[in-house]
Amino acid sequence: MTFKEQLDSMFNPRSVALIGASNTLGKWGFNILALLLGDKSRDIYAVNNREAEVLGLKAYPSILDVPGPVDLAVITVPFKDVPSAMEDCIRKQVKGVVVISGGLAETGEEGAKVQAQIVEVAKRGGIPFVGPNCMGLFDTYSNFNTVIFLPPLRRGPVGLISQSGNSGQSIIISGLESGLGFSKYVSSGNEAALHFEDYLEYLAQDDEIKVILGYIEGLREGRRFLELAREITKKKPIVVVKAGGTQAGAKAARSHTAALAGSDIVSDAAFKQAGVIRVEEIGELIDVALLLLGQPLPKGKRVGVLSIGGGMAVMTADTVARHGLELPPLSPATIDKLNSVLSRRWSHGNPVDIGGDRFNYDCLWPLIEDENVDVVLVIGSPAATRSFVGWFSLHAPWVTNLDEMGKLMESKDLVELNRVKEMMGRYDKPVIFCSMGIGIVKQGEVYSLMEQNHLIPYPTPERAARALSHVVRYSGYLGISR
Amino acid sequence: MTFKEQLDSMFNPRSVALIGASNTLGKWGFNILALLLGDKSRDIYAVNNREAEVLGLKAYPSILDVPGPVDLAVITVPFKDVPSAMEDCIRKQVKGVVVISGGLAETGEEGAKVQAQIVEVAKRGGIPFVGPNCMGLFDTYSNFNTVIFLPPLRRGPVGLISQSGNSGQSIIISGLESGLGFSKYVSSGNEAALHFEDYLEYLAQDDEIKVILGYIEGLREGRRFLELAREITKKKPIVVVKAGGTQAGAKAARSHTAALAGSDIVSDAAFKQAGVIRVEEIGELIDVALLLLGQPLPKGKRVGVLSIGGGMAVMTADTVARHGLELPPLSPATIDKLNSVLSRRWSHGNPVDIGGDRFNYDCLWPLIEDENVDVVLVIGSPAATRSFVGWFSLHAPWVTNLDEMGKLMESKDLVELNRVKEMMGRYDKPVIFCSMGIGIVKQGEVYSLMEQNHLIPYPTPERAARALSHVVRYSGYLGISR
Repeated sequence: MTFKEQLDSMFNPRSVALIGASNTLGKWGFNILALLLGDKSRDIYAVNNREAEVLGLKAYPSILDVPGPVDLAVITVPFKDVPSAMEDCIRKQVKGVVVISGGLAETGEEGAKVQAQIVEVAKRGGIPFVGPNCMGLFDTYSNFNTVIFLPPLRRGPVGLISQSGNSGQSIIISGLESGLGFSKYVSSGNEAALHFEDYLEYLAQDDEIKVILGYIEGLREGRRFLELAREITKKKPIVVVKAGGTQAGAKAARSHTAALAGSDIVSDAAFKQAGVIRVEEIGELIDVALLLLGQPLPKGKRVGVLSIGGGMAVMTADTVARHGLELPPLSPATIDKLNSVLSRRWSHGNPVDIGGDRFNYDCLWPLIEDENVDVVLVIGSPAATRSFVGWFSLHAPWVTNLDEMGKLMESKDLVELNRVKEMMGRYDKPVIFCSMGIGIVKQGEVYSLMEQNHLIPYPTPERAARALSHVVRYSGYLGISR
Repeated sequence: MTFKEQLDSMFNPRSVALIGASNTLGKWGFNILALLLGDKSRDIYAVNNREAEVLGLKAYPSILDVPGPVDLAVITVPFKDVPSAMEDCIRKQVKGVVVISGGLAETGEEGAKVQAQIVEVAKRGGIPFVGPNCMGLFDTYSNFNTVIFLPPLRRGPVGLISQSGNSGQSIIISGLESGLGFSKYVSSGNEAALHFEDYLEYLAQDDEIKVILGYIEGLREGRRFLELAREITKKKPIVVVKAGGTQAGAKAARSHTAALAGSDIVSDAAFKQAGVIRVEEIGELIDVALLLLGQPLPKGKRVGVLSIGGGMAVMTADTVARHGLELPPLSPATIDKLNSVLSRRWSHGNPVDIGGDRFNYDCLWPLIEDENVDVVLVIGSPAATRSFVGWFSLHAPWVTNLDEMGKLMESKDLVELNRVKEMMGRYDKPVIFCSMGIGIVKQGEVYSLMEQNHLIPYPTPERAARALSHVVRYSGYLGISR
């Protein structure tokens, strides 16, 4: 079996044995088994040497007693029992193992000894394993999942590797809330056998995956990571939170995934040289992923701002400047075009402040066409129509044609939003929306269309500008941005 | 009439005339009238010299034709007609005027001339006015509101003054979403007559208001602002977004509220010397307000972190350090107490990583009691119980007593949350929650109790630490923090 085949069978096993299956709600062996039981396409086996049945399944005293072949074993037994469970897995000739159990190298010398035993056993048997001290993995295309406490998943172009289970959960939950879909995820834990670098190499070969996200505390093979990244980032962006960047954080990382024991220090400069986008926190990671998936790469850092309110225009100008981006003067042709669309009250400059109370598409086209502008940032959002109409329903319910009006506005929004997509493609230029004003209703066809295209509005101009500054730098790295 | 009585009658008028009332949906004169019509406790008059009726009300050609007395006139007519409308208001002896109409000093010379006329007329008549180029005001205690496109308001301890209408909307909407309640709001617009400083003085005297928030582009009376602030911040915190801090932002501000024309430059240092908390964006403003309202002022910057996951603990340590806060070593007594509560796998240091998957209160009490700790930051939240139980309902619906279990957990959460409040009071120490993991369900008694007490979880440790660093500095200014 090649390395890729080995990992394939872990992300898409035909049969799975849970070693440590439990009847006690809340235990890992209960929760994961409950999740696996929902998977009717696979053979699921419960292994427990003290029970006859677990959650209605026959329980086998050992994986060796399981009648059929087992592709993947998931181990949740107490850490001191993991080495012998691993022995059994090898004798059973499983193709891969996920060790959920914690209490190993991250807790000190005793645990480190046990972890070393597991590694030795697995190496002898030639079996790759995930973890220990992890939450497992999922693949939305093979419909396989061992990761508990996640909301319903959505398929999509994001691959994720996280050295922390709970950081992984936060990334996935935030991502789902922002309309991202995931392809493969692995919680890599202590990385006693398979390393971040192995998963990175594997995800890079997956055609479903367009962006690779990572949460890193420490890299075991820093040089290999950089070599891989240098190749991958030419085609697929890699965005990582590298935690433990401060002294306090590094100290906390040491007691968490035992990350620094034997790990390489990869500097910010090295990340940059390999084209890796490094961010500081989870919200930033999601924000950058959305831009990378929803937008063409920017050709430069000159931002044209269109705002439906003056105060937001001022704050946006501030945040654009603070993030090292520029607000170019608009071309005379753009000024002319806007003069013909707007009343003479408009700001006559960049930001374009239309001073109205609803987003106006006719001000958007000239900005997309303007050669002085590399990126269009819109403060205002097509998806606000519903709350706009909702306000009237509340305060002017006696208006008879409100529903009709709302539908008309929404169908116009749909047409125009499709034109935004078309114009983005034609001019190969990002158009980024930010919400404001009367709030965003996350419902309806307009919002769905935005979500499908990773165009949902950023909650603040600050977050859009922060993400954009990362993407402009990446685009410069690729030689696309000037 | 004293200055206070004049403003009182604007925030709580017995009778209101809308000059520029309109039958056209979407116009200011329509939208505001629709809002006012919902107010059955006041006499509302429509003024329009071309219609006999507006929205079912008899329309008067001029405010002079209104039969009864008028406390407040709201003007929405085109800007060139505002001076004569103001003349009429003076003859009618109204107590105050709100000029919504824009197109004045912010658009250039012509508008500036009209604005000067309005100021002259109003000064002659001794009438204070709000605006022009604004969205008006509300008072949730008098139930008066002219501000359109807001979701239903909630009463509470926040007073807000915004020089931008749309920034004000964003602040109010974000605040409401975070559980804040508002008392008085004024959109101050171009401040041709009443200045930010006037409203500040007025809100400072309002006993319902515990925190004053502001959005500032430029101050007309910088010295007066600082003198007022120096007195007010001894009792009530003032938190402001001062926009236009960059060159690009300042330029945008010039074409917005004409802020720099005749305004004073107040430096960051001057804000600090007056105890004013200055933030950069709206989310930060809300975050700081929540801390000020929900928490005792911290006695120092030593943060004890309790985390239900290791990765989040590392990122929290990073962000706490980046914001100039400290992670002190825990006292030996705390380590002992935690040893008796946690399995030997815990991190044995600060952050306290309990490595479990649900928030555990028994780890919280020792941190609150620890003399080394000034602030407790909890990564995890009592309000997560619902989504925890929800996950089981989805993946293990055959468990028979899930509902019961959920109710039991929630009632325990309620008891413990009340103990958190009690401990916070007893030790006079902030306890700040951050969400993570399986997400927060914004429902149920637990979330309500958190919301009522301004204890709802911050969405990221980053945002909690950023807000905390501001509050620690303010606490230092007051001599409370070391």
